[in-house]
Amino acid sequence: MSETTREVRLVGLDGIPEIHPGDDLAALLGEAIERSGVGLLPGDVLVVTHKVVSKAEGRLVRLGDVEPSPFALQIAAQHDKDPRQVEVVLRESRRIVRMDHGVLVTETTHGFTCANAGVDASNVDTETICLLPLCPDASAAGLRQALMARFGLREGDAFGVIVTDSWGRPWRRGIVNFAIGVAGLAPLIDYRGHHDAAGYELHVTVLAVADELAAASELVMHKLAARPAALVRGYAPPIAAEPGTGQDLILDPARDLFR
Amino acid sequence: MSETTREVRLVGLDGIPEIHPGDDLAALLGEAIERSGVGLLPGDVLVVTHKVVSKAEGRLVRLGDVEPSPFALQIAAQHDKDPRQVEVVLRESRRIVRMDHGVLVTETTHGFTCANAGVDASNVDTETICLLPLCPDASAAGLRQALMARFGLREGDAFGVIVTDSWGRPWRRGIVNFAIGVAGLAPLIDYRGHHDAAGYELHVTVLAVADELAAASELVMHKLAARPAALVRGYAPPIAAEPGTGQDLILDPARDLFR
Repeated sequence: MSETTREVRLVGLDGIPEIHPGDDLAALLGEAIERSGVGLLPGDVLVVTHKVVSKAEGRLVRLGDVEPSPFALQIAAQHDKDPRQVEVVLRESRRIVRMDHGVLVTETTHGFTCANAGVDASNVDTETICLLPLCPDASAAGLRQALMARFGLREGDAFGVIVTDSWGRPWRRGIVNFAIGVAGLAPLIDYRGHHDAAGYELHVTVLAVADELAAASELVMHKLAARPAALVRGYAPPIAAEPGTGQDLILDPARDLFR
Repeated sequence: MSETTREVRLVGLDGIPEIHPGDDLAALLGEAIERSGVGLLPGDVLVVTHKVVSKAEGRLVRLGDVEPSPFALQIAAQHDKDPRQVEVVLRESRRIVRMDHGVLVTETTHGFTCANAGVDASNVDTETICLLPLCPDASAAGLRQALMARFGLREGDAFGVIVTDSWGRPWRRGIVNFAIGVAGLAPLIDYRGHHDAAGYELHVTVLAVADELAAASELVMHKLAARPAALVRGYAPPIAAEPGTGQDLILDPARDLFR
């Protein structure tokens, strides 16, 4: 058991401008970290909403350019949706999980299960929609490399980057932040085989800490102000674990009771 | 739009002893807060795992005292489980949602959907299991009242208490902390009708901040050490909202695609 973290700080990063395709997001995040005065230290985790990542990567689609398929037209008519938006959702999906109550839940090309394949209004203009990054793990890894170089961290330093999206959950009201891209961080902490304070062996306890870090960071982000990133300082995994990716958080379909 | 929080602190509370039925949990939490040196201020949120709440409230069952019904015997045989534990899970449930892969997902008497109705090993001894609190909202409200009195907070002060459990999620690996009892805090923040930085009206964005606070606090709690509570300092809801309960987080069954 490693020394445990008694205190964690969540710091929202201000002053990140509206992002456009081709912008150097790593540089803009680096400037925001410098302006915040907290700097970047080994052990930090940077959490970034996918919206700015997707915009920088040009993952925007103009609805006027989309030709809906007959299937998209049919779904749109049944569920009172824009057929062009449905067409984009289907292109971003590999399986439809549920269609009801005007909600289209699909499995994305990455393997995530969420409403509308993560496609949503872009806040660019009403005719432009924003997709998830093509590979959120690669996006996280790219930001990590660039920021490590900028702040003089070394390859072995524990510096994590998480790219997030906010999703609804079955049985629960409201959305929360989830980790869709991860780099330099163990997304899961496996307590199985370890013993608790009373000497009990823990059996089925694997914690999705990347999702908890994503959710935590939302508390200092802001949907209304322009604050799409946060720094988490002081988090240390209670059990040493190798870094992984956002793909590690996807449940094996064979074990999934809700496909 | 209220002034937003740029920084939030998560502080794990050490030195809470093993809890037994009848223990004054509020007093033990109060002592832990005093020992931590951070005190208790208006705006703080105290997050407590249900395990210590359940133990203090005597929500423990000795398996030797349980007579399994024929239905429990049948389920246990099909899924290789202890029939006495299945019997307790059924008594704590009002509906079975899924039974497969050795997992029994039910809707609890409170309305939560989770594995085994939240019933798990107690770490008291292998023959004793721990149930969820009878009414986690009442547990949270009781702790809140006692701690407000102890630390001299007034009824109008924003001091929130959240009681948590950790659950698996469909489609995702690993468990995360969820809010099952809430007092003195708005569990949901409704952005609908508000406008983002680009002037866009937000349409379907209701954030489950109580679940995000629960998940965040797990980062400074610890399954191996005895740290079942954490204090969140500096969180302020971005939009003013009335306090609610853990029941507010349960999705209306009529709108649920995964029942």
